[in-house]
Amino acid sequence: MNAEIITIGDEILIGQIVDTNSQWIGKQLNKIGVTVHQITSIQDDKQHILNALKLAQERVEIVIITGGLGPTKDDITKKTIAAFFNDDDLVEYPEVLTHIKALFKKINHPFKEVQIAQASLPSKATLLMNDFGTAPGMWFYENNTVFISLPGVPYEMKGLLTKEVLPRIQKQFKLPHIIHKTIMTYGQGESRIAEKIEDFENNLPSYIKLAYLPSFGRVRLRLSAKGTNKEILENELDNKINQLYQLIPEIITGLEEVNSLEMRVGELLKKANKTIATAESVTGGKIASALVSVAGASDYFKGSIVAYTAETKINLLGVSEETINKESVVSKEVAIEMARGVKEKLQTNYAIAVTGNAGPTSDHNNQGVGVVFIAFVSDDQEIVQKFNFGQPREKVINKTVSKSLEILRKEIL
Amino acid sequence: MNAEIITIGDEILIGQIVDTNSQWIGKQLNKIGVTVHQITSIQDDKQHILNALKLAQERVEIVIITGGLGPTKDDITKKTIAAFFNDDDLVEYPEVLTHIKALFKKINHPFKEVQIAQASLPSKATLLMNDFGTAPGMWFYENNTVFISLPGVPYEMKGLLTKEVLPRIQKQFKLPHIIHKTIMTYGQGESRIAEKIEDFENNLPSYIKLAYLPSFGRVRLRLSAKGTNKEILENELDNKINQLYQLIPEIITGLEEVNSLEMRVGELLKKANKTIATAESVTGGKIASALVSVAGASDYFKGSIVAYTAETKINLLGVSEETINKESVVSKEVAIEMARGVKEKLQTNYAIAVTGNAGPTSDHNNQGVGVVFIAFVSDDQEIVQKFNFGQPREKVINKTVSKSLEILRKEIL
Repeated sequence: MNAEIITIGDEILIGQIVDTNSQWIGKQLNKIGVTVHQITSIQDDKQHILNALKLAQERVEIVIITGGLGPTKDDITKKTIAAFFNDDDLVEYPEVLTHIKALFKKINHPFKEVQIAQASLPSKATLLMNDFGTAPGMWFYENNTVFISLPGVPYEMKGLLTKEVLPRIQKQFKLPHIIHKTIMTYGQGESRIAEKIEDFENNLPSYIKLAYLPSFGRVRLRLSAKGTNKEILENELDNKINQLYQLIPEIITGLEEVNSLEMRVGELLKKANKTIATAESVTGGKIASALVSVAGASDYFKGSIVAYTAETKINLLGVSEETINKESVVSKEVAIEMARGVKEKLQTNYAIAVTGNAGPTSDHNNQGVGVVFIAFVSDDQEIVQKFNFGQPREKVINKTVSKSLEILRKEIL
Repeated sequence: MNAEIITIGDEILIGQIVDTNSQWIGKQLNKIGVTVHQITSIQDDKQHILNALKLAQERVEIVIITGGLGPTKDDITKKTIAAFFNDDDLVEYPEVLTHIKALFKKINHPFKEVQIAQASLPSKATLLMNDFGTAPGMWFYENNTVFISLPGVPYEMKGLLTKEVLPRIQKQFKLPHIIHKTIMTYGQGESRIAEKIEDFENNLPSYIKLAYLPSFGRVRLRLSAKGTNKEILENELDNKINQLYQLIPEIITGLEEVNSLEMRVGELLKKANKTIATAESVTGGKIASALVSVAGASDYFKGSIVAYTAETKINLLGVSEETINKESVVSKEVAIEMARGVKEKLQTNYAIAVTGNAGPTSDHNNQGVGVVFIAFVSDDQEIVQKFNFGQPREKVINKTVSKSLEILRKEIL
């Protein structure tokens, strides 16, 4: 069963907003066994909408349309869908009108004439009641294709999809199961991994797909399975994942979601009953905020000193001015002194410190753009490593964060 | 001149990632006068890619394709585009091979055979050199349509688009100007606003479009103008905005900023020659890393103390133990003392501090999940505000960051 998501609104096309609705809808449809074949974002334009609906009807069984259902002139979805179905009859739903009036009363806004039209739907539509807003959802069924029109406001769309749309799709169609499992790896590029698992990949059955998802020093390997028996699919995917663990044990950090790198570090620290602090220059607190993104981080994360200037490194972290003058702020000596300093100040078992040049220009030090030193200090060891993360700035910062978490994980283990 | 953006990759369709690339591309194209007609996200599937290319060619003059250029088996974009152009000849570019080998050497990874193919392009392609990665971009021109293929890794795509693609498009086509200005309003729904500005809307010239963008409690009004003379368009839009200011003065809060909040804060600080530090609990360094994401931040950002535990707040920021015991760590008093502490320690003109409960559970304090205090301290004033950002954790953290930057901007102004 295939679906297409059509989002209507210039704000996505001109880059004013990011289309997060489609991502959320895609995830929910996948969970009930519907494959999203395509996502199409189009303009608030009658002919464009009609064309998109026609093409989608030729491609898929389920078309989900979001946006353009408001009461103002620029919202033309409802009348365009009516034109698509040659449906001139509008039916007014008294329960929708009552609901809209109640909403306006609740927020103390006067009810306006223009809102009345919101309570009328084309005669071929089935009403999907929108508890959280004034624009109702609509369900059409024609020539074996379902068309669902939803408002673009995220929480209204989510409420309608969860309560009305997904149950109806499950009732209307016999759906397969789709399962994804994603393994996280670090430290090797996709080409190197591909070489190591070439036989594995060539021998995958046709109902299991492998995808490589590279980003900032990490590659995620996603296995997707589709079929009618959920238990068999789950078992097959678990088998394949075990095979991967045997083929590339040295680079796998765990399964995605259950085990992101920062979650894994958190689990290890919690289990060992150890605490950590960070001293950050080039990353500006981004390692700390990755650690804090995990609920319960206060059990092991005590804090961080973000020392963005030499002055702050000296005053807050106790880095010696002599070291900075002799070695420059971007040096292994300064990285180590930063780590020692924050460990001492925050009284933790472990500390990680980073100093580097994110660019675009190299300032007051003798290292090129992209050079970063990462230091790890524990009660019984001190390690410092030099990296060159190249350019641009965003990449240097992100690679420093993920490399720091990797080092942490490895050393705590 | 119309463009279509085609993103290739199941990860968008199954909802594993949000398509932020298209938003960024849309924005850049708009700036040079190219209208994005449609964004299409499709599967890693040969037939699907061929169909999408064909339909796009019928609709627009510029087709930008991202994704699917990696060295592994699931990356099929290059050979599919070659098939689309009936182009069986592959040409190897020695300069690309040298570049790839240098990249591998720099990160100390062994160069793999599978990478050699990355240096070959279909004979009809013009090479677009990718400084930041191994997959080159490609430029094709056929039947008055330009096809541009770019890697999906965001910083590689951004580098190529900025350096190679946009200048070539500007050279190839005579482009109009497209200008958007967005007014922010607060406190009234779109139907009520529409009523008040009905005459204004009906009298807009055909080259100016008005859109209503509602989101909880706020409606943004976007005016878009398209034409050949930039100055005239700018003047016309400014006129229309002045008219709106006269029609609905009571609800307009200002113009939407083109630059991000952190860039705006940075500019203001640099101009005023002032410095800033942050003291963070609940955000774990995320305000600091937002400030640091702007190149040149070292001119005004001195650093941050991330104090995630009560102990660290006392030892590093000088918050009094008595205040914590009496008021709890999540309180306006602690927020103010944190801000004073970091301002003092880092010797800055301004300081911002946050303390709150991100959840999922409320720990050792008397405030509910979602409650956050934000304090701002300068040489001559102290301000502290209480917020309730609800749930979940991620939302609380992100809202705290953006509200802190908003307060900063307002107070520095």
